[in-house]
Amino acid sequence: MALQRPKGTQDHLPGGSPKLSLDVSASAFRHVTDIAQRVLERAGAAFIATPIFEEAELVTRGVGGSTDIVRKEMFRVYYAGDHGGFVLRPEGTAGIVRAYIQNGLKQMPSPLKLWTHGPIFRAENVQKGRLRQFHQVDYEVIGSSDALVDAETIWLMVEVVRELGLSGVGVKLGSIGDPADRETYNGYLRGVFAPHVEQLSDDSRDRLTRNPMRILDSKSATDQGLIAELAVRPMLDFLGEDAAGHFGQVRAYLDAWGVAYEVDPSIVRGLDYYRRTAWELHHANIGAKSALGGGGRYDGLAAELGGPQTPGIGWAFGIERILIALEAEGIELPPSPGPLIYIAALDAEYVGLAAKAALSLRSQVRAEFGYKPQKPGNAFREGERRGAVYTALIGSDEAATDTLAVKHLGTGEQESVRLEELAGFLTPDS
Amino acid sequence: MALQRPKGTQDHLPGGSPKLSLDVSASAFRHVTDIAQRVLERAGAAFIATPIFEEAELVTRGVGGSTDIVRKEMFRVYYAGDHGGFVLRPEGTAGIVRAYIQNGLKQMPSPLKLWTHGPIFRAENVQKGRLRQFHQVDYEVIGSSDALVDAETIWLMVEVVRELGLSGVGVKLGSIGDPADRETYNGYLRGVFAPHVEQLSDDSRDRLTRNPMRILDSKSATDQGLIAELAVRPMLDFLGEDAAGHFGQVRAYLDAWGVAYEVDPSIVRGLDYYRRTAWELHHANIGAKSALGGGGRYDGLAAELGGPQTPGIGWAFGIERILIALEAEGIELPPSPGPLIYIAALDAEYVGLAAKAALSLRSQVRAEFGYKPQKPGNAFREGERRGAVYTALIGSDEAATDTLAVKHLGTGEQESVRLEELAGFLTPDS
Repeated sequence: MALQRPKGTQDHLPGGSPKLSLDVSASAFRHVTDIAQRVLERAGAAFIATPIFEEAELVTRGVGGSTDIVRKEMFRVYYAGDHGGFVLRPEGTAGIVRAYIQNGLKQMPSPLKLWTHGPIFRAENVQKGRLRQFHQVDYEVIGSSDALVDAETIWLMVEVVRELGLSGVGVKLGSIGDPADRETYNGYLRGVFAPHVEQLSDDSRDRLTRNPMRILDSKSATDQGLIAELAVRPMLDFLGEDAAGHFGQVRAYLDAWGVAYEVDPSIVRGLDYYRRTAWELHHANIGAKSALGGGGRYDGLAAELGGPQTPGIGWAFGIERILIALEAEGIELPPSPGPLIYIAALDAEYVGLAAKAALSLRSQVRAEFGYKPQKPGNAFREGERRGAVYTALIGSDEAATDTLAVKHLGTGEQESVRLEELAGFLTPDS
Repeated sequence: MALQRPKGTQDHLPGGSPKLSLDVSASAFRHVTDIAQRVLERAGAAFIATPIFEEAELVTRGVGGSTDIVRKEMFRVYYAGDHGGFVLRPEGTAGIVRAYIQNGLKQMPSPLKLWTHGPIFRAENVQKGRLRQFHQVDYEVIGSSDALVDAETIWLMVEVVRELGLSGVGVKLGSIGDPADRETYNGYLRGVFAPHVEQLSDDSRDRLTRNPMRILDSKSATDQGLIAELAVRPMLDFLGEDAAGHFGQVRAYLDAWGVAYEVDPSIVRGLDYYRRTAWELHHANIGAKSALGGGGRYDGLAAELGGPQTPGIGWAFGIERILIALEAEGIELPPSPGPLIYIAALDAEYVGLAAKAALSLRSQVRAEFGYKPQKPGNAFREGERRGAVYTALIGSDEAATDTLAVKHLGTGEQESVRLEELAGFLTPDS
């Protein structure tokens, strides 16, 4: 059997590929990143790219040692002579904050808006919308703790999704407070769950020691049953004065701008580095347990990575999940254009002429040619198959007079065009 | 100390970053891929993307077990429960040919032109222009063994580099023949080197058994001295009739199209999968031992990967090396534009108004705003620093009359513009 790609990865295929769906369409991926680029760069965001692999410690310290990502889902990277500590990046934020510190980006206008897109890796169980190599669009704002920044950041995420044409998207907004608030809340949770420790799943029993808040994120039905039965109070009830004031300001801006959202007191997010504002974007077709993406404030992350205390906030969405949602809503993406002209030779000796004519057109337009001589009928069919506007033929008559027989495939009109006038004929306005 | 990126990797930085050079500039990378996209898509190439990691066997079988890449430079990827056989891709062609077979792309118009760009990984010694994560633009044509395809493929590589503005680029062209020709040549080389085996480097002694042709590629000075001393005949002298005829046709097309090249009889290329036509692009500033990139025909690769016999040809260049060459030639890239307008509030209570004005402009133009109130002088300076065309102020007078005080930073002209007329004022033609 021929070699296969690794489980949980996809090839992004060209238009016209067999079994093409949006989530494996290279042009659909490009459409999403193009729209994100337009929206985010109009807001002043600059593109950044960080390495595909990073020190494992960056992820352990950034994302948090108690998360499933670090404990179960890391792809480790080794090479001969390695000190043994690299991983494929399982999210984008820690690397960007590391790059901000390492490259002295605090010297740039503050807050600094950065965006990126690229592959992300988690060794998860593979299912629809859950891959081992998936792709994210990521937006980060570093250097301000102002609630206005939170509101604009959420607004931009909603705006990207809106510009993509998705209508069925809901924003779930919450706050996970300041570190002291989380400590209080974790103390409350330990008290609530301690008498029921034997009813918790193995994972959640472990979380009870390490980070009780993550029990609320559990995928286990019995854990969720217990949470409901115990009527566990949400984090939002435990916000201190500062975090509560901040959350109120964020909501006031979003209300003033007409951004619809639902306050979700249960929002926790899977990563340890979040503080205060946290949110998720949901879509009916992705399923209740999964989000299109999410974001949050991470004012403690830079210091955790060994840098100076630096506030930050950001979001990411999964491109594959966006594409599943677009397909579910029946949204058609702009079609890929074919060539303006397809040029075919009628005899082998004119193939070089056909090639040369196409090559010289390409400084202005998309032009293709046939590598083998073709009969006129086959040439016109090939031009149509490639989506060409015109198909042109070169045979002995044309070669003798330095012309091409050019047919408009839409109107059927055909005329003889001198080679030196071909560019002007095809692009009369340029 | 703050965490650092892995040795041999780079962050691609936004414009204005400290110590920015082209080879770490995110916008310079984008410029190169934009130009490549324009040139290659006008020739009918479709974008494809394959996973960042692949089965190790794909690389061993595709690139060849005797290459330095496979023997010394692989990044291996593991996760809990892994069967132990993934690697970060050390080149792009094997994955694309694997994707062609696995996704049934032979059903598409043939030959199929594909292009991609993205990260490539080799655990090499780090030096200027030689990174552990570097980036390539890659172009492949699958499905034809016609010499016209070889010539067009080389023409396109030269065209991308020409469109980038590089002038100091030379093409070295050769042929490594068909498998039978290489067997003959390897037999000749074994005969030549056998009496001198103790003078060869350890690596080359190993190559003498596995693949003698690779001795010619050796980086060891003593090996190269021995090659010169023995006046080793080049591969080109050993081409069979078919390969020699094919090489002649390729040269005839390139000559007819005015593509300059130098026949280099010593060209071998580092990968095992090449056949017949092989070439490299060189630039004075990258150094004689290294190329900007190279390409070759690989008619045996698909079958080697377990697929049907399928001819193919392609090339790749290193984006970082292109950027070093652009910088050496003093070529200036198009500057990143700043915002059309920067909007500042004079008092804290108007910051929300400034934000709202900017947000609503962004459906058409790039608009930024200040998150904190600013004095007029500071606001104008901040607008200038961001490269804004206009800077606008909102204070109590403006808020009371729903206006903005808008200053053109170039002319110094200032006028009062109603909020509802701001978009029309800034973009009179839309």
